[in-house]
Amino acid sequence: MASRTQDSFLIGLIGAGIGPSLSPALHEREADRQGLRYVYRLIDIDVLGVTADEVGDLLRAARDLGYDGLNITHPCKQLVIEHLDAIAPGAEALGAVNTVVFEDGRAVGHNTDVTGFAASFARGLPDASLDQVVQLGAGGAGAAVAHALLTLGAGRLTVVDALPERAAALAASLNRHFGDGRATPAAPDALRDLIAGADGIVHATPTGMAAHPGLPFPAELLHPDLWIAEVVYRPLETELLRTARALGCATLDGGGMAVFQAVDAFRLFTGREPDSTRMLADIAELAGAAGARA
Amino acid sequence: MASRTQDSFLIGLIGAGIGPSLSPALHEREADRQGLRYVYRLIDIDVLGVTADEVGDLLRAARDLGYDGLNITHPCKQLVIEHLDAIAPGAEALGAVNTVVFEDGRAVGHNTDVTGFAASFARGLPDASLDQVVQLGAGGAGAAVAHALLTLGAGRLTVVDALPERAAALAASLNRHFGDGRATPAAPDALRDLIAGADGIVHATPTGMAAHPGLPFPAELLHPDLWIAEVVYRPLETELLRTARALGCATLDGGGMAVFQAVDAFRLFTGREPDSTRMLADIAELAGAAGARA
Repeated sequence: MASRTQDSFLIGLIGAGIGPSLSPALHEREADRQGLRYVYRLIDIDVLGVTADEVGDLLRAARDLGYDGLNITHPCKQLVIEHLDAIAPGAEALGAVNTVVFEDGRAVGHNTDVTGFAASFARGLPDASLDQVVQLGAGGAGAAVAHALLTLGAGRLTVVDALPERAAALAASLNRHFGDGRATPAAPDALRDLIAGADGIVHATPTGMAAHPGLPFPAELLHPDLWIAEVVYRPLETELLRTARALGCATLDGGGMAVFQAVDAFRLFTGREPDSTRMLADIAELAGAAGARA
Repeated sequence: MASRTQDSFLIGLIGAGIGPSLSPALHEREADRQGLRYVYRLIDIDVLGVTADEVGDLLRAARDLGYDGLNITHPCKQLVIEHLDAIAPGAEALGAVNTVVFEDGRAVGHNTDVTGFAASFARGLPDASLDQVVQLGAGGAGAAVAHALLTLGAGRLTVVDALPERAAALAASLNRHFGDGRATPAAPDALRDLIAGADGIVHATPTGMAAHPGLPFPAELLHPDLWIAEVVYRPLETELLRTARALGCATLDGGGMAVFQAVDAFRLFTGREPDSTRMLADIAELAGAAGARA
């Protein structure tokens, strides 16, 4: 039965309101191309009527019922940590886990949001200057992206959030992990001056999604020398990206982060190297179709 | 995502000591030929270190974690019943469930050991007279086989078991469900006379398996007018079948029951019609290979 064990994978996603997730299709399509037996199931705590606190029970049940690994999303990425047997350094530094691999019954946590954004950025904006970076959004996605940017060597990262305490907390945490002075919190009313002096902007708020249309700041703050990296991937072409591209900015859409977090998770789950180019084509098709349905 | 839901199946087997089960391979091979995404996982209570009483917890966890259905085997076939939302009449009459289908969150129990033996018998011994049938073994497999034989129209079934109370209990239960006088208990020392007057013999004890070699009764009791149906399927050719075939008896090996219980379960899980001929070829290969390894 050795071949069955090695070629057969059962993976789940635990989170709330995850019905529209593209992860099942992204993983299963790549597995099919590699000839792997692969089922990716959604384990939605809203559908089950359980609370996020019960993620530990779900984790243990998944391990007992033959799951090989799990992705974890909102609101369980922090709560799951106390139930793990081990955690990778990058995930521990961030304090959030989006991928759990069961290895001989042990649950090992990783964070492929961080590695996924870093891979997408390195691929999509390889020549971007990272001396002065402005980041909008200090929530969960923002924290992952900030860790990725500082790991990639960003000189100074200014974290802007409508909630001052959230920006301050993230900046303080980043400075603890990456060294004093690397991160600074700021309020949205400082954006005009910040963007004027920035090399690039990372956008990590929900603005631009179908339910939150529009721009996260006035278009006139943009200038052609900026690069713009987007975290939103539905739609792939947000109003921010469209506006920035029209102005001549180098841009990176959110599909790359969504794909590379899946690429890195797939590699952790299977030990096989996924083909990221094919998976980028998948998300363009899937996110496009999802956008058309929205 | 409709196509994913319809074409993707997650199935498990709950039981003790099920590592050597051929069910994963039988189901997954047929699913592959039908182009279905299908993962079949073993949920072994010995490996998990839980007791058979906890089958209800495993059942609910499987439902919550996206399983579409379960096979249930020793020692959980009776214990699972109280945890079901509904049960098919044949399984209720037998008091044992080997297949659970999750339908909109409801757990519905079936018994495909009964229907599987009946299908195998009708296919393999279509001309067998059923007036006087002797059955050896009144355990779980014996109960399922006895229900199948009486459903197929057996006139009189004599149930022989080394434990007199077990034979008596099964015969009494059969008479309640199928009508007084259909079933009679007997002790092994009556076998000489019983077989002399029988049309056929069904063998439902472990004798003939690799760990229990030999014949269940002296070879001289056999006569060429008998048909012999075997429940043991590892090996497919037991000493009983070999001896009976050499004498000119019509015979039916246990592979048919093993396949048709899987055929019927596959149909319940997927709504698709399996190809039983291809699955019979699979079990010949798989049981042969398993026998060679044993």
